[in-house]
Amino acid sequence: MPEYAIGVDLGGTNLRAAAIGREGQVLGRRSAPTNPAAGREAMLDCMTGAIAELRDACGPAGLAGIGIGVPGFILLKEGIVRNSNNLACLEGFPIRAEIERTLGARVILENDANAAALGEKWMGAGRDVQDLVLLTLGTGVGGGIISGGRVLQGFLGMAGELGHTTVVPDGNPCGCGNQGCLEKHASATAITAMAGMLHLGANLTAQDVYGLALGGDSKARHIFDIVGRALGVTLANLVNIFNFPLYLLSGGVMAAWDLFAPPMLEEVRRRSFAFRNTPTRIEKATLGNEAGLFGAACLPWAAGE
Amino acid sequence: MPEYAIGVDLGGTNLRAAAIGREGQVLGRRSAPTNPAAGREAMLDCMTGAIAELRDACGPAGLAGIGIGVPGFILLKEGIVRNSNNLACLEGFPIRAEIERTLGARVILENDANAAALGEKWMGAGRDVQDLVLLTLGTGVGGGIISGGRVLQGFLGMAGELGHTTVVPDGNPCGCGNQGCLEKHASATAITAMAGMLHLGANLTAQDVYGLALGGDSKARHIFDIVGRALGVTLANLVNIFNFPLYLLSGGVMAAWDLFAPPMLEEVRRRSFAFRNTPTRIEKATLGNEAGLFGAACLPWAAGE
Repeated sequence: MPEYAIGVDLGGTNLRAAAIGREGQVLGRRSAPTNPAAGREAMLDCMTGAIAELRDACGPAGLAGIGIGVPGFILLKEGIVRNSNNLACLEGFPIRAEIERTLGARVILENDANAAALGEKWMGAGRDVQDLVLLTLGTGVGGGIISGGRVLQGFLGMAGELGHTTVVPDGNPCGCGNQGCLEKHASATAITAMAGMLHLGANLTAQDVYGLALGGDSKARHIFDIVGRALGVTLANLVNIFNFPLYLLSGGVMAAWDLFAPPMLEEVRRRSFAFRNTPTRIEKATLGNEAGLFGAACLPWAAGE
Repeated sequence: MPEYAIGVDLGGTNLRAAAIGREGQVLGRRSAPTNPAAGREAMLDCMTGAIAELRDACGPAGLAGIGIGVPGFILLKEGIVRNSNNLACLEGFPIRAEIERTLGARVILENDANAAALGEKWMGAGRDVQDLVLLTLGTGVGGGIISGGRVLQGFLGMAGELGHTTVVPDGNPCGCGNQGCLEKHASATAITAMAGMLHLGANLTAQDVYGLALGGDSKARHIFDIVGRALGVTLANLVNIFNFPLYLLSGGVMAAWDLFAPPMLEEVRRRSFAFRNTPTRIEKATLGNEAGLFGAACLPWAAGE
């Protein structure tokens, strides 16, 4: 059996785990509903159970470590999850120590968006670079930054909060206390909210709005113009700040790429000298939901021995 | 004689050079007017002359290398300066190779704002951290990012262009092709321009506007409010992106700190969850004009052997 790591993508509704070899080969998978309502003990049992099954199937001797991608901030030194709205039962709990104790293996925690960025770097659209930024456009907007092949974590593990960078100083109010956050102009939730504000319809999903836009509805098309321009401001800023070669986008909103990408790229060109004058790429990520799982599995290796 | 490096701060009007030891001790200094009108040859002679004098005075055996901070983009691999408005005579010229050939020593080029950030990290306000961002508020707005103790350069040496990040999507037009660049809302030039736009007076210096604001002029005070809020948006974005422990400000506009800092910090608090909830510091840089010189001298060591 080759050396492998176990990656876990711990979401608010589902838990997915996989044993993955050093070359990216998937040796086994497990998944289960997370069910936060059942409490912390049940969730931990479910997760450690899935990990133990994979370890026993692949052989404990080859296990390099366990990586877990978690929504929320990770206090890196303490191994504690903070401000995870989707997994409130884990708030402040020393989850790393608990799982290490239960399984007797090294555990590395990482924010889920950071893990996804690492996954794209390892096995996805970023395989050929050492530096990239990933924006995930889903219910919210997540961000992960890979610098020199590693996750840029910041001094407290809170780096990459790109969904809460300001794109419109007097823009839509956000639950974080700010207004004009990227997340309030470019997430699926923002598309639904803007459809309501523009009297296009209440409770339309992003997909509904996309359908209306495809059918020629001018308000719906305007919404994707807003999405594209907000992303364009953010991407131009990121290019000007990092001068990285690659910026990736993923998530459910990507279905509307054809509608939001033209205004997005127009804004980036206008707002970034570096983008206009260098071979900087803005592309679709390729691993989809698998990015977080691969990135989590990669953590034990990326963190060094 | 201890090991030392020679740092050069090559500006549009003056050239400053210093021999600096590994512990930051200044062993010798030279300075001269740059006079770009006299042409490239004269400028290179002036620079290599100053460096050679310092080397001969300190002893060639101890010289670790030569670092040169230059306004404009540095093509790192080629050792070429691009888009330096202040030093047009050097455009596209292989300056590194030429100086290495003339002096027989290793030369490392760096953008001047990046060099200043490295200087503050080495001997200034950032001595106790490995990660910081420096914003220089002068004629323009420059930026330098230190990550893991080193300059974040990007794949083509163009990282840290913070003066051209967008703070107001429909804001003041900028020569770079964008509108709403930080530089157009928070530099000395922007203060002069805003004073004109607000009919406060034509060709007022930033210092004049500061004087009027101190005297209670409401338009002048409003200008420093704009400066502070623009900086606040940028700093909040940087905190959300990097989660670094330290953000430094320097440059001539700092004289008005008491006027622009309160609205700046109010914006950062409002726009960054991480700033509100962590011991993130936004402070004055301490080395002033010396930062670029120290940073340039540090380059041969920071770049590794």
